[in-house]
Amino acid sequence: MKIAVDVMGTDYGPKELVLGAVNAVKAFGCETVLVGDETIIKKLLQEYHADSDERISIRHAGEVIAMDEHPAIAVKSKKDASIVVAARMLRNKECDALVSSGSTGAAVAAALFCLGRIKGIERPAIATPIPSLTGTTVVLDSGAKVDAKPEHMVQSAIMGSVYAEKMLHITNPKVGLLNIGEEETKGNEQALATYPLLKQAKQINFIGNVEGRDINKGTVDVVVCDGFVGNVVLKFAEGLASAIMKLIKEAILNGGVLAKLGGLLIKPAMKKLKKRLDPAEYGGALLLGVRAPFIICHGSSKAKAITSAIGVAMDFVEKDVVHIIGQKIAEAHERNEEINQ
Amino acid sequence: MKIAVDVMGTDYGPKELVLGAVNAVKAFGCETVLVGDETIIKKLLQEYHADSDERISIRHAGEVIAMDEHPAIAVKSKKDASIVVAARMLRNKECDALVSSGSTGAAVAAALFCLGRIKGIERPAIATPIPSLTGTTVVLDSGAKVDAKPEHMVQSAIMGSVYAEKMLHITNPKVGLLNIGEEETKGNEQALATYPLLKQAKQINFIGNVEGRDINKGTVDVVVCDGFVGNVVLKFAEGLASAIMKLIKEAILNGGVLAKLGGLLIKPAMKKLKKRLDPAEYGGALLLGVRAPFIICHGSSKAKAITSAIGVAMDFVEKDVVHIIGQKIAEAHERNEEINQ
Repeated sequence: MKIAVDVMGTDYGPKELVLGAVNAVKAFGCETVLVGDETIIKKLLQEYHADSDERISIRHAGEVIAMDEHPAIAVKSKKDASIVVAARMLRNKECDALVSSGSTGAAVAAALFCLGRIKGIERPAIATPIPSLTGTTVVLDSGAKVDAKPEHMVQSAIMGSVYAEKMLHITNPKVGLLNIGEEETKGNEQALATYPLLKQAKQINFIGNVEGRDINKGTVDVVVCDGFVGNVVLKFAEGLASAIMKLIKEAILNGGVLAKLGGLLIKPAMKKLKKRLDPAEYGGALLLGVRAPFIICHGSSKAKAITSAIGVAMDFVEKDVVHIIGQKIAEAHERNEEINQ
Repeated sequence: MKIAVDVMGTDYGPKELVLGAVNAVKAFGCETVLVGDETIIKKLLQEYHADSDERISIRHAGEVIAMDEHPAIAVKSKKDASIVVAARMLRNKECDALVSSGSTGAAVAAALFCLGRIKGIERPAIATPIPSLTGTTVVLDSGAKVDAKPEHMVQSAIMGSVYAEKMLHITNPKVGLLNIGEEETKGNEQALATYPLLKQAKQINFIGNVEGRDINKGTVDVVVCDGFVGNVVLKFAEGLASAIMKLIKEAILNGGVLAKLGGLLIKPAMKKLKKRLDPAEYGGALLLGVRAPFIICHGSSKAKAITSAIGVAMDFVEKDVVHIIGQKIAEAHERNEEINQ
């Protein structure tokens, strides 16, 4: 299996991505093609003593799409941008999946432009796995589409369920609609219009509305929301988690000698917890609804996160998630036609 | 100064509210009128040895609005519901401010129905103070109005600025629009339409878009968002903070003898931190935009939170926030008329 990695346009530069890919090849025995500036990649491979590994190849791409560029315009005008080159390789089946950690907007645009949507899918969605008290919750959409229509939300629910079932091994995953109250009558226009559609969708196990506080409780396995709300919530989670950790550290450091000793003693336990909560362990988010396996990592991903993402990408391919989503969406369309007849 | 407290319709029943009010009278020397079932309140006052305190009075209200009732319908049909009786007292100037911790929807509906909006305000907003790394950030709207129009968001920004300046003593408070990117071109339709209006509003110090991760960083003092987004984010914060604390406890308990000892040693420091982050210390959220000081507490508020809320209500009255909001909104309207001429 060959995974393409777009190594450009990220916060820490190509070195973390190249290292992450090198480690993935060693750990999983896959092949990888590194897409980006050939000179830089070659130098990094030498540095990591991986320049003679035949499982690793390079595809040169002379341009980069920066975080602040307009995604659709940049993707259309920069034919040689690393993300566009990589997405084109995926379309041409020169690789089985793609891992990117550059601009999310550009990744989504490149996926739409080069790969296209699965038949019947109106909008792709980004599905992000986050740790909960009971395991993992999938939140989608976390930013592919703002102002989503109710139909898009239903498709998100179906895609998120396939992901939870196939890749997280959750049987009959529970789906909740993110809302401001549990009652069916609560919510904004979008939520009010989405609720009845989710209720009648036979492809999912919809259990009703969930509130913000349910996300980490693990009340449901799949949380469906608009891309705007999902993006705000997930970025907020990042900020809040790191703020709490910072405040705990400060409190211990300012708490006198005994507190400092206590801080040292709990360090191993905290390290273990940190590992469990570390987004790097989760290996990025899945762009669902496009015609090939596409993983979007955080712009500040380090090597470990990239290695995990490559593992997730392999699983994404092996479990044939793209194909199963296509089947489920086709089923949903057939059912809708039956209802409308 | 007399503060009315609606003691009915909350998660823990009237006892926490009555105790909180009794403690506030002792601590702040204010008067309070407890609105709800007279028999229950009398019994609780006896229990707390406060039945002969002349600063504490009772106003009987025979009905309660439950959390799951339709707010507007319930407020209109239950004339004798505690929140309606209390709001009417506030309108008739029988008290200076009102503290409630029943159904938020019913509180907003009662405020609109009995008090009405400040002249020029189209929609009230709930402003919630939350702890940040640098102090306190005000998030509004946290649930009074979903599907807010851009004009409502601008009014929220003005009201939030007055709150931050007068009650949190922040000079020229920085205002940010909650969005999915920093650039002016990012966002959903609502955010895109709101940005230019905030930019030209002279009554506020608008610094641009902020993302979810900025809320706890303290990047800005006032975060403006739609009531749907604000509600989801704040409930998520609750859930996430308590999940992290629970996981830390578990990690320490499962970490062996040394980790447990460490846990004991850091306890005082953690307690201090918990106090700083405790929503009970913040005394509830302000319902801004209605014609009198109205505080909405969490349905699960305990006595301490109610005491804090009464303190905040007194400050709300003393700082004349309602009047100042009226002036600022009038100024904004005058300016808009000038621009349109």
